[in-house]
Amino acid sequence: MTKPGKFISLEGVEGVGKTTNLEYIADHLKSVGKKIVITREPGGTPIAEKIRGLLLDHGDEVLCKESELLLMFAARAQHLDTVIKPALQAGHWVLCDRFTDATYAYQGGGRDFLMQDIAWMEGFVQKGLKPDKTILLDLDVETGLKRASKRSEPDRFESEKKVFFEKVRQVYLNRAEAEPDRFSVVDASLSLSQVQEAIKIQLDDFLSKE
Amino acid sequence: MTKPGKFISLEGVEGVGKTTNLEYIADHLKSVGKKIVITREPGGTPIAEKIRGLLLDHGDEVLCKESELLLMFAARAQHLDTVIKPALQAGHWVLCDRFTDATYAYQGGGRDFLMQDIAWMEGFVQKGLKPDKTILLDLDVETGLKRASKRSEPDRFESEKKVFFEKVRQVYLNRAEAEPDRFSVVDASLSLSQVQEAIKIQLDDFLSKE
Repeated sequence: MTKPGKFISLEGVEGVGKTTNLEYIADHLKSVGKKIVITREPGGTPIAEKIRGLLLDHGDEVLCKESELLLMFAARAQHLDTVIKPALQAGHWVLCDRFTDATYAYQGGGRDFLMQDIAWMEGFVQKGLKPDKTILLDLDVETGLKRASKRSEPDRFESEKKVFFEKVRQVYLNRAEAEPDRFSVVDASLSLSQVQEAIKIQLDDFLSKE
Repeated sequence: MTKPGKFISLEGVEGVGKTTNLEYIADHLKSVGKKIVITREPGGTPIAEKIRGLLLDHGDEVLCKESELLLMFAARAQHLDTVIKPALQAGHWVLCDRFTDATYAYQGGGRDFLMQDIAWMEGFVQKGLKPDKTILLDLDVETGLKRASKRSEPDRFESEKKVFFEKVRQVYLNRAEAEPDRFSVVDASLSLSQVQEAIKIQLDDFLSKE
């Protein structure tokens, strides 16, 4: 597929500042004249949002692991087909709050789904299409959890959470190391203005290579 | 998995008499003392029925092929995990109105989804679990369409339908030929009492080998 537009994903664990920085990235790209489509995963289309609903609220019924992964990629397939690919073909820049790297990190790293199953589904659904640039907001887990807990009730599972998020972070970092051209890792422990300056440098570098 | 119960699926194209014969099979198995769970695909659990809803009614949004197949198997995974496996483990006989053979026949044969993609998802979701016995009600397509059209409005697409159902039927027959022990092919062009006699012979043969 020829892609007049570019596909940017933003990744990182809870508390890392994704929402604020997503807006910053959108504003910066707009300021240099790009048309932006902002979207999120899982979701982004009416069907995909319904699938998101099934993933987040499945009542008393336990959602099995296989079903969870299939639903995740069903939403992604629909999102790609209905939103992302048409936007890229129309020359828009797509800015996505999480994409497949999050599936590797959360389901693969955090919850022991097999990486090879995720990779098969990625191939089936994306057929080689990946973000052109992925900005990973990286933060040590303790600081991230402290920040996140300010937004929600702290709970009894803090130590379990820590182990979980350590594994998630490690997969993100491994993936960034394996694909250094696609990933830009930004140190999210810095002040917001420093983080945004770092993001701006990465974006400008990416823009200069267009 | 050890399976004290047995898993029976009933397959066939529209107009072949699945509903009537499903009841007949259930009654016959009950008459020889089996506890029966009757279920259907896609569906069979609250989550799987919601997924069925997405498959059958997706509003104005076009459901892409990848999403359709992933949703189909997400419903199946949930159905297996929540209904079929627990029932088999409890010693019940599960009688299912369509299962994965239908995916091969309708999506693979009728609509050109790749058989290898279906096979990968079958392995991922079923991990070797298949029906112990599959009764295929086979009928030439013309007769089937005539019977089905009595139940619904005839439409402008009869000839397209015929080509489609020929392909579906052929995949069913190929699968039956490849797995002669699992499949029992019943000629559904016969009278109802003759069809049910043929089904009874196949079931009794299967029961005698338990």
